[in-house]
Amino acid sequence: MITSSVDQLLKNPVSFLDDSGPDDDIAISSRIRLARNIKGYPFPTAASPQNLQEISSVVTLAAKGTETLGGKEMMYFLPEELSDIDRKLLLERRLVSPDFIRNPQNRALFVCPGETCSLMVNEEDQLRIQAIRPGFQLEEVWKHISKTDDELGCHLEYAFDDQLGFLTSCPTNVGTGMRASVMLHLPGLVLTGQIASTVQGIAKLHMAVRGIFGEGSDNCGNLFQISNQSTLGESETKIIDNLSSVIKQLIQQEKHARRKLLEDNRYAIFDNVGRSYGLLRHSYKISFKEAMNCLSGLRVGVDMNLFTLMDIHKVNELFIAIGAAHLQKRQTGEHSEGDIDILRAECCRKLLAEPHLS
Amino acid sequence: MITSSVDQLLKNPVSFLDDSGPDDDIAISSRIRLARNIKGYPFPTAASPQNLQEISSVVTLAAKGTETLGGKEMMYFLPEELSDIDRKLLLERRLVSPDFIRNPQNRALFVCPGETCSLMVNEEDQLRIQAIRPGFQLEEVWKHISKTDDELGCHLEYAFDDQLGFLTSCPTNVGTGMRASVMLHLPGLVLTGQIASTVQGIAKLHMAVRGIFGEGSDNCGNLFQISNQSTLGESETKIIDNLSSVIKQLIQQEKHARRKLLEDNRYAIFDNVGRSYGLLRHSYKISFKEAMNCLSGLRVGVDMNLFTLMDIHKVNELFIAIGAAHLQKRQTGEHSEGDIDILRAECCRKLLAEPHLS
Repeated sequence: MITSSVDQLLKNPVSFLDDSGPDDDIAISSRIRLARNIKGYPFPTAASPQNLQEISSVVTLAAKGTETLGGKEMMYFLPEELSDIDRKLLLERRLVSPDFIRNPQNRALFVCPGETCSLMVNEEDQLRIQAIRPGFQLEEVWKHISKTDDELGCHLEYAFDDQLGFLTSCPTNVGTGMRASVMLHLPGLVLTGQIASTVQGIAKLHMAVRGIFGEGSDNCGNLFQISNQSTLGESETKIIDNLSSVIKQLIQQEKHARRKLLEDNRYAIFDNVGRSYGLLRHSYKISFKEAMNCLSGLRVGVDMNLFTLMDIHKVNELFIAIGAAHLQKRQTGEHSEGDIDILRAECCRKLLAEPHLS
Repeated sequence: MITSSVDQLLKNPVSFLDDSGPDDDIAISSRIRLARNIKGYPFPTAASPQNLQEISSVVTLAAKGTETLGGKEMMYFLPEELSDIDRKLLLERRLVSPDFIRNPQNRALFVCPGETCSLMVNEEDQLRIQAIRPGFQLEEVWKHISKTDDELGCHLEYAFDDQLGFLTSCPTNVGTGMRASVMLHLPGLVLTGQIASTVQGIAKLHMAVRGIFGEGSDNCGNLFQISNQSTLGESETKIIDNLSSVIKQLIQQEKHARRKLLEDNRYAIFDNVGRSYGLLRHSYKISFKEAMNCLSGLRVGVDMNLFTLMDIHKVNELFIAIGAAHLQKRQTGEHSEGDIDILRAECCRKLLAEPHLS
């Protein structure tokens, strides 16, 4: 099978970041991934290179016939054949995990056009299916990923135990093998100092709170991924219902915090929004973290209608475009970390060159 | 004699801040003040209220006939009759010293239209004559202030000792009674870390380095006032020559530092300029100190031709307009410190609304 060029991905904006999803002023995206393994093959963590190649071949055959993965339009990547920048670009587009590109040997990736559905092969589990949509719509995502799961399941016999459910490499995924998550933008809870207690409360409900690049990543840009912790003893829909009710509460809390900030501290909000815009629009050197925090401020301004001419698509586009690999990919030659901060500032200045604060 | 309204001052921009002076990219303004006392009257520090009133009357009579103080157009202020804000406004326009408005009793102020020449009565000395001009032109200033000194001297017999020269309240002013100073904008020396050793070097030459509001004030906005320390044993022109040669060296050092920054760290300069503009143009709350530092950044941009459409007069105007008293004076009602930061940001946003970074 012929591999695709990563350049193809850059032609289109990341569709899960468009602003057409429900509650998209606070919920950025909804994502579900399913961990699956094939009966008769060892988990990747215990597999020989030959095993891994066999698994890859079997899964590739199955993926080829999968319509929800794009059918004939499906993109196919072998991470070990990619450059370091291309691999990082896949990570920045949230198509792969950090571990997947750290150890790229015998791994493969399938992506549907629009990047709303993808499949990692030989990550921690043999199959990691992912579906993602803008805004808060876990049920829609569940519908789509179930189809992909079913399609692949027609060609592959999943490792399944009647008592336990789907068998996975790590015991924390056994059962449904599902992790559902919603990326929330919570500047209100951060600015009002409520975020720490909120995170503690979520943990008590057996949900996890993570940064934008998943496990082990820092929070930045006031973006938080909320996901289910347990995968065993409950149905997928029950897990999604539980998570959804937590997300709904968080959205209400965030809305309340923003209202309160506008009432009590109007100018602090305006100032945060204005400075964020001012720095993105006029700086000549900006770190990823600072840019993310400024984009967070900019989104607040858009959400609160403080901007009249701002194109929200541009703001969302920037969340991806400011990644180091995306910036380098659009340039030629070697780049030091300092250079990347310069490229990032240039990218932000250009994209924000036209709109103005109302 | 009828006192003037402080509102009159606000009608015109401060003329010593226009950009028509020599070396005005680095030298903001040149200033000389002369300390004088009248024979037969005690120094203000030792005088009774009645003495002070007598002195005030005598000086007022003399000032009335002084053409270089404006003649019939001369403005006359009694600080004890002014509101607190009006007094602070005089300070922000550099027409009076902090002490002059802290203890306003029996004091008077004369100002010529354009504010290039003024006279404080009953500050530390009975007369403190000031002349100020934009850019680096101490000799011009000396010519002007000499005239004022001569004009007043026709009506007043100065306390003068053949051996010591002019007698003053504080021994450090005895002799010429003159302090000459140049306000320099030295962001290059600050950014390259050379400012500390430069200040030390200046001190060794018996020159003083102070902040924008004179003795005891902090440096802010990278603005430094360099002035002579000694007033005894040398002629005025010799003192001015010495100071001028130090200023010339500092201007060369600053130019060199800026060139070096542009060569070695081009983007750091661009970034400083851009962020300064971005914050002034888009923040909704800004402290005096932050605004001064941003204005410093903006001036660097203008000096280095990084802006095409920026009106330098606007930038210079802001250096005065962002003072708390100026901001409050243009508003009605009581204002807390937080409110003033909001007013300041509004003032900056409005003034910078049109021009753009090139």
